[in-house]
Amino acid sequence: MFITFEGIEGTGKTTQITRVKEYFEAQGREVFLTLEPGGSRVGTELRKMLLHVDNNDITPITELFLYLADRAQHVAQVIRPQLEAGNVVISDRFADSTVVYQGYGRGLDPKMLHSLNEVAVDGLWPDLTILLDLDVEVGLKRAMTRNMREGKTQAEGRFEQENTSFHSRIREGYLTWAALNRKRIRVADASGTPEEVSANILHLIESHQG
Amino acid sequence: MFITFEGIEGTGKTTQITRVKEYFEAQGREVFLTLEPGGSRVGTELRKMLLHVDNNDITPITELFLYLADRAQHVAQVIRPQLEAGNVVISDRFADSTVVYQGYGRGLDPKMLHSLNEVAVDGLWPDLTILLDLDVEVGLKRAMTRNMREGKTQAEGRFEQENTSFHSRIREGYLTWAALNRKRIRVADASGTPEEVSANILHLIESHQG
Repeated sequence: MFITFEGIEGTGKTTQITRVKEYFEAQGREVFLTLEPGGSRVGTELRKMLLHVDNNDITPITELFLYLADRAQHVAQVIRPQLEAGNVVISDRFADSTVVYQGYGRGLDPKMLHSLNEVAVDGLWPDLTILLDLDVEVGLKRAMTRNMREGKTQAEGRFEQENTSFHSRIREGYLTWAALNRKRIRVADASGTPEEVSANILHLIESHQG
Repeated sequence: MFITFEGIEGTGKTTQITRVKEYFEAQGREVFLTLEPGGSRVGTELRKMLLHVDNNDITPITELFLYLADRAQHVAQVIRPQLEAGNVVISDRFADSTVVYQGYGRGLDPKMLHSLNEVAVDGLWPDLTILLDLDVEVGLKRAMTRNMREGKTQAEGRFEQENTSFHSRIREGYLTWAALNRKRIRVADASGTPEEVSANILHLIESHQG
């Protein structure tokens, strides 16, 4: 089973992914956690390139191809082998991030982006995608608190530096894209307590399996 | 005017590009020389990643997207501004390398590769492409001599390590692709002396301009 998590900054993806991992482990399953960008060895170099604030001269199309390179390597060298070994794979961001950030965010054509994703994922789509939905202001505030708590430098903050209207386009883009792919993408309200959100997500997973 | 040079290793692209530069400079034109991969600031990092022998776990599709990222950045940040400044731009390799190396070489679909190139070059195709054609054995021998003379380490040799049958597919792929694009791509026999090859290339450039 391959599950991906999507959503704007500060929706609590990391926390919720840990809970889903515990849920599957309690059933005796092996769970492999991964992320994009940066899920493969070559991908960690691409992640640095993509998220570093000094790289603000990267054009939207260059950025797109770097994400696709990261994804192609991630699928071939990490996700597919893990699934073939029988493990549950959970990825923090995957193909939908490209459609939403580069499409609804940067203005590239979502349909064109979807066909490029088809090349990158090479037939391997998630069984289920959880979209954590949250008010943009609340999300950015949470992300800032987290970054300060974790002592994150500003270097990996190329997206946090975007303005609120960019992040609003991302949130709306996610909701539109989820509506267009309602069989695979399920929306979870991320405004409650971690326990409330987690209960909702596990319910979505169980009803998807059942 | 935007001219690109293509061909297998050892066809003398660097030598010939210098001569074409001198030809245009003698006419009072400014000439900007560039190359792929690695023609932009971000591209130099991608070049290291693409050519380093340690990266043999890069899949053909990952490799493809990295070349496209390099090209998109190269066009937007280097080639287009140089052309807009009125300069002649000569690039050592460009979009045709992707169709030939990833298509005829690695087995991806040349038509799919051409549409991805359309996204990367964003409307900016070369006015003229010179394909230097040479017997594969002769080319590889020349490339080896050059690498030894220049004290090149083996690190940037991911393509030189491929076997002769790979390089033969590349040569034939170039000739097929040139035949399909005969208005833009002109084939120059690279087996003669540098002077002979150069005279032929300048003739092709003049007849293209005239």
